[in-house]
Amino acid sequence: MTKILAVNAGSSTLKWKLFSMPDETVIASGLVDRLNLPGSIFTVKRPGYDKYQVTQDNIDYRLAAAMVLSHLKDAGIVKHLHEIAGIGHRVVGGGETFSDSAVVDKAVLNKIHSLTQYAPLHNPIEAQYIEIFQQLLPDAPQVAVFDTSLYANMPMINALYPIPYEYYKEYGARKYGAHGTSHRYVSNRAAELLGKPLTDLKLITLHLGSGSSITAFDHGKVIDTSMGFTPLAGVMMGTRSGDVDPSLVSFLAEKMGLKMGEMIDILNQKSGLLGISQLSPDQRDLEAAEETNPQAKLALDMYVNRIVRYIGSYIAELNGLDALIFTAGSGENGIDMRARIADQLSYFGIQVDHDRNQIRGKEQIISPDGKPVTVMVVPTNEELMIVRDVQRLTQN
Amino acid sequence: MTKILAVNAGSSTLKWKLFSMPDETVIASGLVDRLNLPGSIFTVKRPGYDKYQVTQDNIDYRLAAAMVLSHLKDAGIVKHLHEIAGIGHRVVGGGETFSDSAVVDKAVLNKIHSLTQYAPLHNPIEAQYIEIFQQLLPDAPQVAVFDTSLYANMPMINALYPIPYEYYKEYGARKYGAHGTSHRYVSNRAAELLGKPLTDLKLITLHLGSGSSITAFDHGKVIDTSMGFTPLAGVMMGTRSGDVDPSLVSFLAEKMGLKMGEMIDILNQKSGLLGISQLSPDQRDLEAAEETNPQAKLALDMYVNRIVRYIGSYIAELNGLDALIFTAGSGENGIDMRARIADQLSYFGIQVDHDRNQIRGKEQIISPDGKPVTVMVVPTNEELMIVRDVQRLTQN
Repeated sequence: MTKILAVNAGSSTLKWKLFSMPDETVIASGLVDRLNLPGSIFTVKRPGYDKYQVTQDNIDYRLAAAMVLSHLKDAGIVKHLHEIAGIGHRVVGGGETFSDSAVVDKAVLNKIHSLTQYAPLHNPIEAQYIEIFQQLLPDAPQVAVFDTSLYANMPMINALYPIPYEYYKEYGARKYGAHGTSHRYVSNRAAELLGKPLTDLKLITLHLGSGSSITAFDHGKVIDTSMGFTPLAGVMMGTRSGDVDPSLVSFLAEKMGLKMGEMIDILNQKSGLLGISQLSPDQRDLEAAEETNPQAKLALDMYVNRIVRYIGSYIAELNGLDALIFTAGSGENGIDMRARIADQLSYFGIQVDHDRNQIRGKEQIISPDGKPVTVMVVPTNEELMIVRDVQRLTQN
Repeated sequence: MTKILAVNAGSSTLKWKLFSMPDETVIASGLVDRLNLPGSIFTVKRPGYDKYQVTQDNIDYRLAAAMVLSHLKDAGIVKHLHEIAGIGHRVVGGGETFSDSAVVDKAVLNKIHSLTQYAPLHNPIEAQYIEIFQQLLPDAPQVAVFDTSLYANMPMINALYPIPYEYYKEYGARKYGAHGTSHRYVSNRAAELLGKPLTDLKLITLHLGSGSSITAFDHGKVIDTSMGFTPLAGVMMGTRSGDVDPSLVSFLAEKMGLKMGEMIDILNQKSGLLGISQLSPDQRDLEAAEETNPQAKLALDMYVNRIVRYIGSYIAELNGLDALIFTAGSGENGIDMRARIADQLSYFGIQVDHDRNQIRGKEQIISPDGKPVTVMVVPTNEELMIVRDVQRLTQN
């Protein structure tokens, strides 16, 4: 039995999960929150145990990593730290370089740094965590698992934008996508549940959370995804606009005397469900308000519409569809949202069975039997995908 | 019998057509090209007559309008200028104000001027032409026919962008669409050819030219269109990009040290088929080159793909489809392009019959009999739509 650690690091949080492999059970998981702030919170959960939580001011990323490992040993979760046979790190920006996860060596680490321009808020931090875990556990191989690798080889007709071709060559101007680890996990799991090889299926996976993306799989190959050069593009999200006429963005910046970077911040942080509803980025708040608040209803209707449009465009690109798969926070728990989306797609033979749809966060087929398109809920598990990649790439 | 003049004015050209109504025959048509330049060209065509053409330096818009009317009289096309019972003008930007064409009075003219911010290259010139024709033919009513009026009342879920709601209220930030007169004409004509009222049909109209747009009609009402706040958005075009992640535009501007306005110019003028192929914005040039030029083929494949995506998304929004209608330069003449688009949509019951498809610029059903979706070619006729609106709005 092997233990593998999955690390998902952000600018203010460090999430981790320790798995026992190959049985894929979670031994412990945790979160270090409010990094570099007064009252940083260090939390560990462990099946069968009470939650462990301590608060301490200004935990930084080095200390956070060290505290995780210390706690694993001190609490007896591992006997020796060398039991940890590998560490997998989520890395947001893999560019075109990484079409698969990669065992980290000096060259890989340099490359992650050099891709910073495509993920300025993520890659530098993720690289720092790789470096500190290398220092703390020098014998454990580290694997970088990229959000973008699923999309590195997508067809050029979908990867490229219809702009001067030299911008692709010179500046890497193309669609990189995001949430790839999630879409990869749920597409594989959906194929297992359908009892067919992924290479026999046309699938659309809907990762609907505070950030949302939609991916089309044609016989095991990704052919398109809704996020773009950055995770701003695609469907409407909690605070992100998704697709907008670039001329409008330029027009508004001029009207308001804002710099383009400030406009992009508004599109990322003050738009989407929040922008239209002027109430909340959270679909649950809007569902609670929509009967009496027309803007809350408008925001939800627009959200459904943008998802429906993408599903239609991907059925066209796939020229068919076997299954539609909901995942992530809203996809796994949004009973009403799933029904609203499916209701607008009846022409394609997409339908949700009311009773089957009454589930949250569990694997289930929610379409009636005998329909041309199977609609399913498959809870995502990016950490499991990460540790599987560690095992696949480090165990010969 | 009444004569009505349709005027389609741009910054460097004045196109016009004189119709006999109600029989809707063209009496004469003409073009004044290269306005305000050395060697302006004044051309008139008249069925049964040789083409008339003179060249004269620096014809300006006032002189152009006066020359048109003088020629009509001097060449005996009309006996008296007061035979011209009305003049219809294409106006690009009607904002939300004009949901129908409008007889021009002082207030309408002021409003056209005030909508200049939404069509800076068009509205001022079009207003100038209305004014000069008012001076030259004071007794003839003038009617403004707006490119955008078809979309003024489209559902808010599609008209709005998922950005802060106040931008709609304060700056008119919404989708205005374009090519409305063309989509209106071909949707009506398609219904006639299908022998059904427009209000019984779900239609998608494809206006494919150097600028391209796609519109979805649900039982006579427009529900969505591909162009956006400006005609930059939507599908890929000859030199326009269509939809692009706004973050990428901002990233490229920064990389190249360009202002946002300069980037938008590149998206309008150096992108699309031209940008990808690095060869030509004209689909015919690319079709001729694609066997030996991979970028020409890539550009065409991307063009087809973007159209296919929009068709899919509109079938989803319509939750069905009765007919798909091709119009404008490439839609009417692109035999190969029509087949390539239809070939990727077979899942929807969309198919083109090879023999029926061998037509250019004429009305024809090109799908096989008995298919769930009728595919048609309907040549557009914006000028006819314009003079019909003049007649409808000025003859009580």
